[in-house]
Amino acid sequence: MSTLAYQKYFSSVTAELKQAEQLMLEQLHTDSARLFAAATHLITGGGKRLRPAFLLLTGKLFRRDIAFMLPMAAAMEIAHVGTLVHDDVVDASDLRRGIETVRVRYGERMSVYAGNFLFARALQLADAAGNPDIIRRLTAGCVRICAGEIQQLEEAFSWQQSIPSYLRRINKKTALLISLSCEIGAMQCEAHPREVRAMKGYGHNLGMAFQISDDVLDYTATEKVLGKPVASDLRNGLMTCPVLFALQHSSQRYHLRELIDSINRLGTDPLREQAVVEEIVAIVKQSGGVDAAVHLAERYAARAVRFLQIFPETPARKNLMQIAAEVARRNF
Amino acid sequence: MSTLAYQKYFSSVTAELKQAEQLMLEQLHTDSARLFAAATHLITGGGKRLRPAFLLLTGKLFRRDIAFMLPMAAAMEIAHVGTLVHDDVVDASDLRRGIETVRVRYGERMSVYAGNFLFARALQLADAAGNPDIIRRLTAGCVRICAGEIQQLEEAFSWQQSIPSYLRRINKKTALLISLSCEIGAMQCEAHPREVRAMKGYGHNLGMAFQISDDVLDYTATEKVLGKPVASDLRNGLMTCPVLFALQHSSQRYHLRELIDSINRLGTDPLREQAVVEEIVAIVKQSGGVDAAVHLAERYAARAVRFLQIFPETPARKNLMQIAAEVARRNF
Repeated sequence: MSTLAYQKYFSSVTAELKQAEQLMLEQLHTDSARLFAAATHLITGGGKRLRPAFLLLTGKLFRRDIAFMLPMAAAMEIAHVGTLVHDDVVDASDLRRGIETVRVRYGERMSVYAGNFLFARALQLADAAGNPDIIRRLTAGCVRICAGEIQQLEEAFSWQQSIPSYLRRINKKTALLISLSCEIGAMQCEAHPREVRAMKGYGHNLGMAFQISDDVLDYTATEKVLGKPVASDLRNGLMTCPVLFALQHSSQRYHLRELIDSINRLGTDPLREQAVVEEIVAIVKQSGGVDAAVHLAERYAARAVRFLQIFPETPARKNLMQIAAEVARRNF
Repeated sequence: MSTLAYQKYFSSVTAELKQAEQLMLEQLHTDSARLFAAATHLITGGGKRLRPAFLLLTGKLFRRDIAFMLPMAAAMEIAHVGTLVHDDVVDASDLRRGIETVRVRYGERMSVYAGNFLFARALQLADAAGNPDIIRRLTAGCVRICAGEIQQLEEAFSWQQSIPSYLRRINKKTALLISLSCEIGAMQCEAHPREVRAMKGYGHNLGMAFQISDDVLDYTATEKVLGKPVASDLRNGLMTCPVLFALQHSSQRYHLRELIDSINRLGTDPLREQAVVEEIVAIVKQSGGVDAAVHLAERYAARAVRFLQIFPETPARKNLMQIAAEVARRNF
């Protein structure tokens, strides 16, 4: 998760990513210094810029000069940051990427409006590209992302949910915007509809692999690597792939259900919570839930690679293939 | 504020407003019954439907059959309801239009996402009209509405703010979306650019008059009429036209500043707050702040009427004129 580790995969678009970052800050200028500070807080605080990176890398498949794609790249990241600001309000999170959340620094009230401001600006910026078809896909995507956020709320602490339901949820939460970045990137380059579909498919599968790997990290990484407490998802009631596998296959699955119910009930006692969380993590690892999740991520990553096979063997294609090859191990 | 009192002004579009309402409910259907219930809670709970009404009344200026405008009418109201859902979260409001807010009924977390869902659906629906110019104005409008919400947060309890600053704030908060409804209505009917500008001007001035009158009601109406506690704005620190006039012209203006500061500090003691609020309301009325605000609303309303003069004398124009003539008295 360190900055250096993943930047090598985006090295062919480093200059453009820097310019997109600059553009994001410019586009978020407003009369209110406080709104600007709140809206840009998570942007200046880092982030992997996955969505603009995938848009721009897709551009490189088709064009040498991708400067015309910068506003769209900025729009995709601004929209993504808008969802993060609202998610931190909803989850009452204190830390993200190792820094204070907008909610902690600027308050909940400002966070609600700053998130809206980010969404509105993102759509305005995307609209400036003048392609109604892109706007149509983007607004439809936004509706589905909202539906996914609600699904996540509704499924909190629910050990009854199925793996397919989890996959539908992470599709809306993560894969959709990555897939849209690839799809819109191809559309902006006036790629053939078959190529647009291939990039949409690549982005979807890559995004699924990325999120599953991210969900694995919640069980396996340290607080330092995560930039937030270990097993944060679990504490928030987010049932992800490793625990869902364990709930199906572990010999201790009935005990596991009880433990999950107990975090939900006893969430206010931090010491007791810590003990329960540690026990759940141990059962999940022991049952093979983490390994099963990694295997699933690898299958999505392999599928992402296959979508690239219709393209000629260029450095840009090789780059996208490398990313897919590494994503399941989250070496970026 | 009663339903009957204003419906007579919208009687020429009653059938279309009913259809737009139906369309709103249809468009908000989703897999989550709870999200649907939250998103439609304020819609089924009533509301004056000002924005769709103005869009449709503008349509009547130019066309006999305005059925093609229904999706846009629904979009404008859905977007408006989205802002209300978020405003109630930010203001921690319990009541709106005499019913529980979405926040109270479905929780803050659901409210944040339901608001986003409403915005996204509104933009998707507006986009379906296939006019990129409309989307451009709408997204630019959304950005300004967000900026206005932030301005309102920042100016809470600030007795230093000027009347012009208040006017800029209510423009973004209210007049903008009414103005956009009129402007977009004219654009949808392919009106001449001069006519589009006239309707934008009508909507702006009508919207300003409407919001100033609304701000007067906070000082003059009863809880039953308002559907929420008297002087709610004042309690939330919202400095509106009547009190801002009093802060400039009342002989008790220094005392008034102290009282305002004290609500900000003593907001947690309801009995003490009630006494301070009553004293402020009395000073504002006595200083002529309410009369001055009514007079200002009348000036905006008169300006709205003048924008209509370029149109032929049709029943539709007469209808829009009547509304402007009545708005300052808030007989609708």
